Amino acid sequence: MKRWNGWGDETIDRPLADSALVFLEQRLGAGDRSPDLDFDEACARVGPSRLSADVMLDTSASARLCHAHGQSLPDWVAFRRDRLGPFPDAVARPESHADVRGLVDKARRLGAVIVPYGGGTSVVRHLAVVDDGRPVISVDMSHQNRLLDLDTHDRIATLGAGAAGPVLEAQLRAHGYTLGHYPQSFDYSTLGGWLVTRSAGQQSRRYGRIEDMLLGARVVAPGANLVIGGQVASAAGPDLRQILLGSEGRLGLVTEADMHVRPVPACEAFHVLFFADWTAAEAAARGIAQSGIDVSMVRLSNAEETDVQLRLVGHESAIAWLRRYIGWRGLGDRPCMMTLGVTADDRRTARRITGAALSIARQAGGISTGTRLGTVWAANRFAGAYARNALWDAGYAVDTMETAVCWSATAPTMNAMQRAAHDALAGFDERALVFSHLSHVYAAGSSVYMTVIWRRAADPEQDLAHWRALKAAVSRAIVDAGGTISHQHGVGRDHAPYLAVEKSDAGLAMIASVFDAIDPERMMNPHKLLPEAGDVG
Amino acid sequence: MKRWNGWGDETIDRPLADSALVFLEQRLGAGDRSPDLDFDEACARVGPSRLSADVMLDTSASARLCHAHGQSLPDWVAFRRDRLGPFPDAVARPESHADVRGLVDKARRLGAVIVPYGGGTSVVRHLAVVDDGRPVISVDMSHQNRLLDLDTHDRIATLGAGAAGPVLEAQLRAHGYTLGHYPQSFDYSTLGGWLVTRSAGQQSRRYGRIEDMLLGARVVAPGANLVIGGQVASAAGPDLRQILLGSEGRLGLVTEADMHVRPVPACEAFHVLFFADWTAAEAAARGIAQSGIDVSMVRLSNAEETDVQLRLVGHESAIAWLRRYIGWRGLGDRPCMMTLGVTADDRRTARRITGAALSIARQAGGISTGTRLGTVWAANRFAGAYARNALWDAGYAVDTMETAVCWSATAPTMNAMQRAAHDALAGFDERALVFSHLSHVYAAGSSVYMTVIWRRAADPEQDLAHWRALKAAVSRAIVDAGGTISHQHGVGRDHAPYLAVEKSDAGLAMIASVFDAIDPERMMNPHKLLPEAGDVG
Repeated sequence: MKRWNGWGDETIDRPLADSALVFLEQRLGAGDRSPDLDFDEACARVGPSRLSADVMLDTSASARLCHAHGQSLPDWVAFRRDRLGPFPDAVARPESHADVRGLVDKARRLGAVIVPYGGGTSVVRHLAVVDDGRPVISVDMSHQNRLLDLDTHDRIATLGAGAAGPVLEAQLRAHGYTLGHYPQSFDYSTLGGWLVTRSAGQQSRRYGRIEDMLLGARVVAPGANLVIGGQVASAAGPDLRQILLGSEGRLGLVTEADMHVRPVPACEAFHVLFFADWTAAEAAARGIAQSGIDVSMVRLSNAEETDVQLRLVGHESAIAWLRRYIGWRGLGDRPCMMTLGVTADDRRTARRITGAALSIARQAGGISTGTRLGTVWAANRFAGAYARNALWDAGYAVDTMETAVCWSATAPTMNAMQRAAHDALAGFDERALVFSHLSHVYAAGSSVYMTVIWRRAADPEQDLAHWRALKAAVSRAIVDAGGTISHQHGVGRDHAPYLAVEKSDAGLAMIASVFDAIDPERMMNPHKLLPEAGDVG
Repeated sequence: MKRWNGWGDETIDRPLADSALVFLEQRLGAGDRSPDLDFDEACARVGPSRLSADVMLDTSASARLCHAHGQSLPDWVAFRRDRLGPFPDAVARPESHADVRGLVDKARRLGAVIVPYGGGTSVVRHLAVVDDGRPVISVDMSHQNRLLDLDTHDRIATLGAGAAGPVLEAQLRAHGYTLGHYPQSFDYSTLGGWLVTRSAGQQSRRYGRIEDMLLGARVVAPGANLVIGGQVASAAGPDLRQILLGSEGRLGLVTEADMHVRPVPACEAFHVLFFADWTAAEAAARGIAQSGIDVSMVRLSNAEETDVQLRLVGHESAIAWLRRYIGWRGLGDRPCMMTLGVTADDRRTARRITGAALSIARQAGGISTGTRLGTVWAANRFAGAYARNALWDAGYAVDTMETAVCWSATAPTMNAMQRAAHDALAGFDERALVFSHLSHVYAAGSSVYMTVIWRRAADPEQDLAHWRALKAAVSRAIVDAGGTISHQHGVGRDHAPYLAVEKSDAGLAMIASVFDAIDPERMMNPHKLLPEAGDVG
């Protein structure tokens, strides 16, 4: 069963190592460990529904509670610290395109608002229920998860948009094919969610971002069923797929999508390298990204993140050995770790890619430790989010903030984001543990992905105050640096106040005009994506 | 000087070989060779302007004549057969973003309509002047053609949008960089034109389509200057670049664009291969496209096109030798020709790509003739359009029609398009010479590019009747096959009636709503792209 108030499966716990706890207390002080709200208490907070239960609409308190939140920090404060609500009035679980059509028609008749729900993994409050006077239906798409067609000649799979990563991949792999989309939220996030939030998977160097994989989609909008895209390549006017991608539910509910797929690769390995400093490591990452060498992933941790990751792994003797080895190879005590993914259809190609990428890395002074650490990384690639549960239980909050910028701006932006995070918490006399990595590299630049850990407070309002200051300061640092307000998480409620900097007022007007053409009553996930009066930026 | 009434430079003639003329007469009969209108006669057709000449606006008859048309067949009938008009009331030649801003403001004050003019190479009537009662200004962007900035660290070039291919590449190559965008119209078409019509270059396998190369653009719209895009990668809402791309001037005038560039490659070669039949050749093209082998181009002529190309080249003894060689290798007398582009940063990579691609081709029975024919192709890659002048003078009209479809639909669509062309002209008791190639291949499918040659008639109205029947029949065959109405030419006036099949009515409403948000008076290239009442489809 999915945890109702945290990340992942409730039978899986990944407690922190003792040494990690000691490290956190030394760096941040001890955090508050006030007990959580329990499930029954939480259900009791759910008030009466404005909608009548029927075969389509589940108005039970448990369903409404479990669909009221995602994984944004304010969501965590809500479900862990008893700051719950508002709740959707009902939860629907359609199983087909026709079900969704019927549901949207019904919602329209009822004057209700629809909030699409995929895997519930949004970290920017795509799922927030905003009470504007209308009843709210959360539409859980997870039952529409089947592989409907696979054309191996054209390499196109038609999939139900509610398919979460493991269900989607299992169906494709049974035929020898893969989509190759692996965001950290893979275990729960869904195809439809990936599409409307422009998700980027860990191996996007090989498989592309989700927008590169979409051939076409079927969408249930209030007034019509839309068929968007479907052309292999076209010069016939604007590409409407690129409006659907990133629409965050405001155009309608994606029910089915035609996706480019490819055969399951024969070889895959993740090589871990270390560099003496950031400058050398970034030069290697840029060199590989601009060379055209088709590695599947380049992931580069800064010195702080490298240090913290080695500490949090907890295998002290192995890590001590690794640190000695790195020191012996002359990299000093502040190394930066790079993980290089090599994915290929045959071993000869894998060897060639590995050789070419390692050669560029070595020219920048990189030292390879082989693939053992990379195998550990791969085995835990989707498990990182479980640390959030363990950290919270230990008295610490954690959040991540991210952007993408040109190479010239990569290090300055990363430093400005980290400084903003430290300064924001220093304003409350709190310390922050802050570290970053580049998660996706491109010819012109890179993403910057920053993690912040800080102490929970005794008062949940104080937790929220800390987060608001942190989020505002870092978001401001991002847009001031010319970065996108999100490279991979989307906009939701949390990033909406910053969108105008990136898109311009005219650009927002263009987007709003499209939504209004399709959804004049603004019943499809309103209050998300586009900024509204009263949003605090 | 650019030819006012045909393709290319007026000092360049590429007459047909005698053997080619004999072949055309045998296949099609002799065409009409009525003499053309001359330039002075044509200027005399230009009536008075509704605008007053000033430092911004050139109202001379010659300027207005030369900006009244593109390269669509109806354009040819207009300027060659005295069916001229309507004409723009003035031609403007802005030299900077500020000039364009001033010009658009002035046009707005005058209640005038703006038609953007890049290189004048549109084959679908993007440049047509439609008289809706308002004066029309043709904005010739060719003076805004400079490389404004080149960031080699991030590999981004900022360019004036009026830069035509040779001017653009010369400036980049002076620094060792290239955009790598080579449509057949390269000599005249401009960056801004490529962007707003979603152009695809011949080597798009390596460099991408123009939409893959765009980082961001500055656009002068009626009410505001727009800055669109600029993010390396983003999950922050819809991608507005993809609305600008394909907007065909309706959002505004693109003045400057930031483009991804790369170093000039060290090696380039074009290998020519022959296959016994289409099935084998298509299997090889698909195999290469799906393998991930990074050839820069795959171009595959069907048997008819292979035959015609060899005939029209005119080197009879060399071609006879080639035909004997192909026959001797057992490929029969209806071979299909493939041209494979190999472009790489070093010789080792070039050898690897060549080996991998030829290996797939050989498995499908392909016979390589090496790179000599490919070198001839490359030397003439932009000269093919000159054949239009020579054919017209010899009594023949020529047009091309194109789409893209999934691999499963490639051969059926090509055959349906060819049959439609034959049948349309057979309705007039006319024969057609029809042949096709795949010009751009993708993992999921391919473009299909068809050429039709037929006799000119003594009466220009008859020429237009032939063309209308041909265009309607082939366009209908394309949309019936599920293909895009254009893979690389755009929509303009000629394809607008077919756009709704591809985009849906709701999709067209989405596009119209964006244009109306930015240009409520519809002064920017109106009557293009979106279908209008009275359009004949």
